[in-house]
Amino acid sequence: MVPRYTRPQMAEIWSPEARYRIWFEIEALAAEAMAELGTIPAEAARAIREGGTRKTANITTADVDRIDEIERVTRHDVIAFLTWLGEGIGEHARYMHQGMTSSDVLDTCLAVQMTRAADLLIADVEAVMAALRARALEHKYTPTIGRSHGIHAEPTTFGLKLAGHYVEFARNLDRLKAARAEVATCAISGPVGTFASVDPRVEAHVANHLGLAVEPVSTQVIPRDRHAAFFCALAVVAGAVERLATEVRHLQRSEVREAEEFFHAGQKGSSAMPHKRNPVLSENLTGLARLVRGYAFPALENITLWHERDISHSSVERVIGPDSTIALDFALMRLAGMMEKLTIYSERMEENLESLGGVVHSQKVLLALTQAGLSREGSYAAVQKAAMETWLGLGKADARRFAENLLAVPEVAARMDAGALSAAMDPQRDFRHVDTVFARVFGTP
Amino acid sequence: MVPRYTRPQMAEIWSPEARYRIWFEIEALAAEAMAELGTIPAEAARAIREGGTRKTANITTADVDRIDEIERVTRHDVIAFLTWLGEGIGEHARYMHQGMTSSDVLDTCLAVQMTRAADLLIADVEAVMAALRARALEHKYTPTIGRSHGIHAEPTTFGLKLAGHYVEFARNLDRLKAARAEVATCAISGPVGTFASVDPRVEAHVANHLGLAVEPVSTQVIPRDRHAAFFCALAVVAGAVERLATEVRHLQRSEVREAEEFFHAGQKGSSAMPHKRNPVLSENLTGLARLVRGYAFPALENITLWHERDISHSSVERVIGPDSTIALDFALMRLAGMMEKLTIYSERMEENLESLGGVVHSQKVLLALTQAGLSREGSYAAVQKAAMETWLGLGKADARRFAENLLAVPEVAARMDAGALSAAMDPQRDFRHVDTVFARVFGTP
Amino acid sequence: MVPRYTRPQMAEIWSPEARYRIWFEIEALAAEAMAELGTIPAEAARAIREGGTRKTANITTADVDRIDEIERVTRHDVIAFLTWLGEGIGEHARYMHQGMTSSDVLDTCLAVQMTRAADLLIADVEAVMAALRARALEHKYTPTIGRSHGIHAEPTTFGLKLAGHYVEFARNLDRLKAARAEVATCAISGPVGTFASVDPRVEAHVANHLGLAVEPVSTQVIPRDRHAAFFCALAVVAGAVERLATEVRHLQRSEVREAEEFFHAGQKGSSAMPHKRNPVLSENLTGLARLVRGYAFPALENITLWHERDISHSSVERVIGPDSTIALDFALMRLAGMMEKLTIYSERMEENLESLGGVVHSQKVLLALTQAGLSREGSYAAVQKAAMETWLGLGKADARRFAENLLAVPEVAARMDAGALSAAMDPQRDFRHVDTVFARVFGTP
Amino acid sequence: MVPRYTRPQMAEIWSPEARYRIWFEIEALAAEAMAELGTIPAEAARAIREGGTRKTANITTADVDRIDEIERVTRHDVIAFLTWLGEGIGEHARYMHQGMTSSDVLDTCLAVQMTRAADLLIADVEAVMAALRARALEHKYTPTIGRSHGIHAEPTTFGLKLAGHYVEFARNLDRLKAARAEVATCAISGPVGTFASVDPRVEAHVANHLGLAVEPVSTQVIPRDRHAAFFCALAVVAGAVERLATEVRHLQRSEVREAEEFFHAGQKGSSAMPHKRNPVLSENLTGLARLVRGYAFPALENITLWHERDISHSSVERVIGPDSTIALDFALMRLAGMMEKLTIYSERMEENLESLGGVVHSQKVLLALTQAGLSREGSYAAVQKAAMETWLGLGKADARRFAENLLAVPEVAARMDAGALSAAMDPQRDFRHVDTVFARVFGTP
Repeated sequence: MVPRYTRPQMAEIWSPEARYRIWFEIEALAAEAMAELGTIPAEAARAIREGGTRKTANITTADVDRIDEIERVTRHDVIAFLTWLGEGIGEHARYMHQGMTSSDVLDTCLAVQMTRAADLLIADVEAVMAALRARALEHKYTPTIGRSHGIHAEPTTFGLKLAGHYVEFARNLDRLKAARAEVATCAISGPVGTFASVDPRVEAHVANHLGLAVEPVSTQVIPRDRHAAFFCALAVVAGAVERLATEVRHLQRSEVREAEEFFHAGQKGSSAMPHKRNPVLSENLTGLARLVRGYAFPALENITLWHERDISHSSVERVIGPDSTIALDFALMRLAGMMEKLTIYSERMEENLESLGGVVHSQKVLLALTQAGLSREGSYAAVQKAAMETWLGLGKADARRFAENLLAVPEVAARMDAGALSAAMDPQRDFRHVDTVFARVFGTP
Repeated sequence: MVPRYTRPQMAEIWSPEARYRIWFEIEALAAEAMAELGTIPAEAARAIREGGTRKTANITTADVDRIDEIERVTRHDVIAFLTWLGEGIGEHARYMHQGMTSSDVLDTCLAVQMTRAADLLIADVEAVMAALRARALEHKYTPTIGRSHGIHAEPTTFGLKLAGHYVEFARNLDRLKAARAEVATCAISGPVGTFASVDPRVEAHVANHLGLAVEPVSTQVIPRDRHAAFFCALAVVAGAVERLATEVRHLQRSEVREAEEFFHAGQKGSSAMPHKRNPVLSENLTGLARLVRGYAFPALENITLWHERDISHSSVERVIGPDSTIALDFALMRLAGMMEKLTIYSERMEENLESLGGVVHSQKVLLALTQAGLSREGSYAAVQKAAMETWLGLGKADARRFAENLLAVPEVAARMDAGALSAAMDPQRDFRHVDTVFARVFGTP
Repeated sequence: MVPRYTRPQMAEIWSPEARYRIWFEIEALAAEAMAELGTIPAEAARAIREGGTRKTANITTADVDRIDEIERVTRHDVIAFLTWLGEGIGEHARYMHQGMTSSDVLDTCLAVQMTRAADLLIADVEAVMAALRARALEHKYTPTIGRSHGIHAEPTTFGLKLAGHYVEFARNLDRLKAARAEVATCAISGPVGTFASVDPRVEAHVANHLGLAVEPVSTQVIPRDRHAAFFCALAVVAGAVERLATEVRHLQRSEVREAEEFFHAGQKGSSAMPHKRNPVLSENLTGLARLVRGYAFPALENITLWHERDISHSSVERVIGPDSTIALDFALMRLAGMMEKLTIYSERMEENLESLGGVVHSQKVLLALTQAGLSREGSYAAVQKAAMETWLGLGKADARRFAENLLAVPEVAARMDAGALSAAMDPQRDFRHVDTVFARVFGTP
Repeated sequence: MVPRYTRPQMAEIWSPEARYRIWFEIEALAAEAMAELGTIPAEAARAIREGGTRKTANITTADVDRIDEIERVTRHDVIAFLTWLGEGIGEHARYMHQGMTSSDVLDTCLAVQMTRAADLLIADVEAVMAALRARALEHKYTPTIGRSHGIHAEPTTFGLKLAGHYVEFARNLDRLKAARAEVATCAISGPVGTFASVDPRVEAHVANHLGLAVEPVSTQVIPRDRHAAFFCALAVVAGAVERLATEVRHLQRSEVREAEEFFHAGQKGSSAMPHKRNPVLSENLTGLARLVRGYAFPALENITLWHERDISHSSVERVIGPDSTIALDFALMRLAGMMEKLTIYSERMEENLESLGGVVHSQKVLLALTQAGLSREGSYAAVQKAAMETWLGLGKADARRFAENLLAVPEVAARMDAGALSAAMDPQRDFRHVDTVFARVFGTP
């Protein structure tokens, strides 16, 4: 992933140094288990753990370069690493990796990396939720227009809008936790998963120390349906990022102006037009969501490996493992910051709410009319007639508001007077269940 | 979905008749709840439930045509349905749908349809699992070669292969159950989800009777992250279908011939070549998996609706709702039948196992040599040398088997004789943990 | 594809009746070529062309049912068809399909269907272009605000906007023509493409009569890169549909109201809210675009068939062949109609243009200041200051327009007076090159 | 893209240094055009071209760091660059970028980068084609079995197989050239594409010097349908890579062994199994193809920018611009090298060809029987019977070959003797049109 969208804590998980540290840990743990089982000498396990002349707790860029150099001959990454490590350990090195296959190391390492990445993403989503919760409570009763199809529908509150996004992220928190569990397995089962030359208790030992479950059936590799499910979960989370970002983009439109991304001192919106204040963060999030969605596709194709395994998944994962988690991590933290600092224009929300002459109360009038005995079809026709007149008059000098137009319809006038209409259209009716919904989302206060 | 890939039980779920029956049920349940709350007269709720002249329990094609006809005027499907229903009910019809919005009906109906579809898919996966379990137990100890990269690796058993597929489908069973829960929610919350004109207890009542949970925050619509997660789960399941289908395609190759799809009497493999017996079922499954995977993408894009909703998701769901579930249902049942009837050639498996002159036991020899005191690198070099000679001699008249070539390597000969080699290469060593893995998968017998 | 999104002329291309008519034509043409070459008797070719008791020019649903019935035994569609046809022809039928393979018939037929579908889509795009051209010329000089990031940028004309969409569709016209050429090939080359038992001149004859080119190398099948390129082209066209639909959705927003989909007499926007007038057509197009995009993916995966062919592509194409072309055909014709009848509110465009107090002219002032000798950075800072004041005052009683705020900045006042500012901000400057662009797009008048 | 899959020549195109050099060139060219038109002083254009203290021909990492530092304040990349450049130029810098908008620079620069990337990819495809041509001519008449559905079909030649791949890459060469033309356009049209403050002749001048066409209608940005078409073309090319890689993977299977990737001295196939020789290059190519395919999806979503533009496409392109072209460049060059050095086992091809007892000649016998007067159905049944007996006897001690089984069928024996059968099954018949196909592909020798 390009540096621009990379946070160091996520990048570190995917660094070669981190990867080799995990590889070492797996080999050392496996050797210890084998020593305990009597398969290899105890001093061999100790020698492997100590790493000889290798500083395994602090693998450096120079070490990485040396391993890469060996790989250019062996054309095999794990053998290159084992060669490098073996040179440092000496004699006892021949007890390393006994009965294991490269994938035992690679796939278990990937499991460690993906669970660490998931932990960061989980914390990110919690940060987004915290920001949403704070702003939702702050604006629990800030009236704003609800829109369907981009058209004013009925009043709602800005807090309710945010509560909906909050609860979507809460679902995504659960999905990420499930996705983490999907990939948190360890395989040390040998070339075709038969444990032909390695005892299943070695696997159990390594799994246990790495906080992983044992993979029930590995066929050289950990099956890739797990990883596919993981990357799909990320794609669903990215969808939530995009939905909220799109909301902000709409609210910041020049004609709407109900909210605005924080505009920094010194910030310039356009090289040409000094007046611009653009929702560039949320547009950026929209693009990042597309990327994360796109990465799910090769992950789904990776499921179908040939027989006990082929290595086609590897190049895909070398790229999307880091890229998908890094992009989503960045997006989530950018979103959290953006929502914390979002400027919210509640006065403008009120203005917009009123801007259509009151037609947004049409359903409440419709119901009052049916309650007053007019048929549903008759009520609908009467209210639609008054609403359309109001709508078409918008912005005209002699325009009448919805209430006036309603009273001009005989079917309405016969059943309701101005007072009844005003009572029916009381916006407070729209907010009476806000508390119920907030209790569902945030619990009872 | 084309009829060729459609089973009637899944098609029925998505028929217009079924949809209208569910719509009716939602309206009737909502009316009953409103009557209980005193919002509408009890006799109105009864009249709605009775449906007047409409036979709501048995909506026919003629009814569907009539509703379609009304829709051509109203350009709104729910209004068309309500008009048709209202004409049958008469006077009391004005109490229907009070304070509700179309999406309350549409989205709750979709939840009912998707959970029913999920139930069928769950049963399908169970059928696949049953077939796999039976064949796995049958071939628990049938020796076969394990392959990585399409190259012979080490012996395994055919039962172990199938156990791996079984456990992948077991994971998919869990994923389908989770996906079902994702979409099993009900929303009756009015135009922008505020319950402005409908009591939340109406929602609870409808949800309860339909076996759904209440959607915590609906914004006219049930949020589409749920549906995206559902269709992604289907794509992951489709991956498992494709993986197993690809295994069968490989096993049926002319050069492999270890298994074969059942070939029916009267079946013709090719219009040109009377000798052909092709794995057409598993190839077909490969294609169907591509389709189901492809349907996940529009579902992911559907998450980002504008504000409280737009209707862009609707056309997508009208298509992929049926198409994705129908295609996967068909694929799973085809797979179950195919695996039940799969012809398995265990003699040929043995032949193939032996066909590379014994090099598939290279790891066991490698380990024996390191145990006998040779360094890991030295052992690897010695074994690789003998293996490559064996490999390059394959099919030649004067070819020596792996064991002979090994004994010709001084480093080997110095440490092992023919008896020791034979013991090291004993294939029974490969199968000693089959039981452990079977216990993980199928439980202890 | 669901009937709702299906136009009969496109559905007809994909009907079984049409398919069998094309199959017959291919077999008859091939027989005629063979007779000419002396491979089969001339009277056999005549008998095949006449079809015996089969009415090949008018294959009916009953015929389709009969062929389907045979297929249930043979499990092979082409053999079923040949059997049905042979029964009608009698004796001479044994000369049919000589040296050919099923794919010769299937793939050549698909080429005919796809080119016919392409012809419809090309006509559809031309209809969209005609609608866009008419509205673009009509509104060549209708001033409207150009927006970047959803924020008012600088004035443009509504005609210019439409010209941009027109020229995108013109590119798509070229892409569709190229896509049509991609798939317009014929293969009659036998089981593995060697012409082992069929003369290449047969292929040339059939190709020639069907308006197709000869496929240079077919390997039982016509290579699927062609079809992948075709479906990708459709996905790009769908993107143009979505872009224009999204523009309309934005313009119809309650806060913008610059354009509106035609609202029919009797149309109802919402079951709950009689006031609603929603952009449902353009939202529908957005969803259809997602579908067409999604269909490109399985098509791309279809490229990699095994060896000389496998049949995994077939199930995919049975579905996306019709579904992708039907959905796009429907979308394009809906779009053409929508643009023809779009209600355009030019007065509201003017109002919106003026609504930000004149800041949309900031670049022209910036340039005037640099021309007047102020540095670029100094000019930017001065103009940004005045613009931000204007922006933040929007909607306030004591708000000053941009020009006033500019004159309050000393760096501006020192260089420009009100007259100079007014001249610099003249919107006519924005339109002086409209003619240039129109000439590029529509040619010189 | 990870370094492992990155060739320096493609990486260089996407480096920040290269990007800033192109930005500079665009600004300098634009200034020269403006000077020629008299819009800015000639000495200003000269001063800009000279770059003052900036070494614009050799922008260094230090420069990049300085520009990045400025961007952290302005939060706008082009403004940061202009500030850095302006500081170097001094006084005359105020004439830079007059009437232009950032996208004029960004999008024109992207066009230059994408066309350069396309040039490399075109050369790569030519390298693949050269390798394929050489091997195809070398093996023009090497007999091998053609396979459909993974099942032996009829004989073909290895040269024919390669010719088919060659011609697919030839099509991809054309597609890449078309894709290059799609994106080879320049836009210098100001904030909303009206040329309000910049003369269209400036655009023409810049386009001309950069080898680009003028974009007919740009709306701040160059429309993204162009880029989507470009990335889709790359996905189609990736499909061809995968198809050929999959062929090699199949041919290298242990049971097939007809071809093998070059195995280097020192190479190790497995950390566990010294005998392994795996097709890791072609498996790697399969994975890379998945990645390139996945990148097409966000590119398609990028088409729908809001109004005159939003910036959601930008993050996508920062990633997939480099990643998609780098991955495909690497894949193509790896493929070219792999095909050049592919070890081809023609003896094994003959063995496999013979391994099914002759049933692969079933079509030729079928035709001979129909020519001899047996009906098509009768011939098919007779040949199928003999073939199935041969098939089921494979590997059995008393197995009879196809010819023997045929002669045991009365319908055959009545019409053909051993000599006639042998003549009918002559494999030379399969190769008689190889020349015709080669002439289509490589031209007449």
